[in-house]
Amino acid sequence: MVYRLTLSYRGTAYAGWQRQPNAIAVQQVVEEALGELLGREPAVVGAGRTDAGVHARGQVAHLELGGEVELRALVHGVNHYLPEDVRVLAAGAAGAGFHARKSATAKEYSYRLSRAAVLSPLDSWRTVRVEPGIDLGAMREATALLIGRHDFTAFALAGGAHRQPRRTILAAEWIDREAELELRIVGDGFLRGMVRSIVGTLVEVGRGRRPASGIAALLSGQPRSAAGPTAPARALVLERVDYDVRRSPGGVSGGARAE
Amino acid sequence: MVYRLTLSYRGTAYAGWQRQPNAIAVQQVVEEALGELLGREPAVVGAGRTDAGVHARGQVAHLELGGEVELRALVHGVNHYLPEDVRVLAAGAAGAGFHARKSATAKEYSYRLSRAAVLSPLDSWRTVRVEPGIDLGAMREATALLIGRHDFTAFALAGGAHRQPRRTILAAEWIDREAELELRIVGDGFLRGMVRSIVGTLVEVGRGRRPASGIAALLSGQPRSAAGPTAPARALVLERVDYDVRRSPGGVSGGARAE
Repeated sequence: MVYRLTLSYRGTAYAGWQRQPNAIAVQQVVEEALGELLGREPAVVGAGRTDAGVHARGQVAHLELGGEVELRALVHGVNHYLPEDVRVLAAGAAGAGFHARKSATAKEYSYRLSRAAVLSPLDSWRTVRVEPGIDLGAMREATALLIGRHDFTAFALAGGAHRQPRRTILAAEWIDREAELELRIVGDGFLRGMVRSIVGTLVEVGRGRRPASGIAALLSGQPRSAAGPTAPARALVLERVDYDVRRSPGGVSGGARAE
Repeated sequence: MVYRLTLSYRGTAYAGWQRQPNAIAVQQVVEEALGELLGREPAVVGAGRTDAGVHARGQVAHLELGGEVELRALVHGVNHYLPEDVRVLAAGAAGAGFHARKSATAKEYSYRLSRAAVLSPLDSWRTVRVEPGIDLGAMREATALLIGRHDFTAFALAGGAHRQPRRTILAAEWIDREAELELRIVGDGFLRGMVRSIVGTLVEVGRGRRPASGIAALLSGQPRSAAGPTAPARALVLERVDYDVRRSPGGVSGGARAE
């Protein structure tokens, strides 16, 4: 049976989602908790390889188990063995062809800035401060240019080794909430470090250091050095992963399904 | 000169605002940071004696200094010496008669519940879980009965030694935000543990364990045992403290003023 897990974590203490040789990753603690529960450590595949310090509200992962397990017992059993900064929010049975990363059709990330003069410690662990006078209008103008299918090489961290740097941004907008500014961005996929490089570049636009229209030129395969800096990890959250129900060409039910 | 500080802190690691003999309190770390900055530790008086684990977004405190200090330097200088879970958000000069606690005319607290089946680790450090089916209508009916001037003895923790248990609740409402339920409550003052006992009692109403109308009977000096349990500290935040501009009887400017 293939099972699908929805996970949330504070990334502060982790080297990211993916197992690392010399640091603790979220994937590892999830696999170890499943091992404690089931007596055998299954491989857990995540939809998004979140970087060190990045949080998740709706990471999705899949695993294959020999037998059937009761879903409520799976959720509460794994949570019993997980540290308190990682939680399974939900579990479901998935179709045999379901793959958390390959079946995903879209992901949504959020990134939180604040224009407060001093950040409250209730927010500072997951928020990055910007100047109160930052030009949100210019940032919104630049953000609109991201929508569509583009070559995001200028926004990809080295080490990603992306053979195919083209991605489609389906939606991107800034929510303006008192001192807070939150970017919500939805795409069919993201290169390594892409959201954070986008934010770093948009903040430069907001500071008047590059024109909003300059974003268009960056979306045609320019090198990483052409874009702005990579914004800090602590303000980035993987909010959700989408899976469309796909139908096999001729019929009613089909390959990758979830929930 | 009397100075007024607006402070925010994560209360998780502290024994509350007020100095304790065998535990670290927020008041102590603020006084010590001021001591590092000024070479002499002044006494800092807070508006609200928040309990162990309770957070603040807008605590107010005052202190008296021999000379004058530049306000920006005071904010950034104290923050330099404070741990990252305590921050001075703003500083101002206050009138000679200003007293953070005695001059306060109102305080606002928030308390955050969640109806999620499993709490996200992004929220769990400052949220308390309740059953998804909790009866918010009944809780709102009970909450409305709190408005006005009442004897809150039934909602006061022992050890508070309140000579005068009457307080006026100026506003109280539940904000319903997806899985989250947030109580916002404004009063001219609060007895020790009062907001948390109110929440514990309202949750019992939401669970059908006591009628909404039962709150009225509790507001006439009944003992603590008549009300519900004290809800956990981690979901309580002192949001703000209000100071009305008071004019001296005959004139234009007067006693307690701030900002």
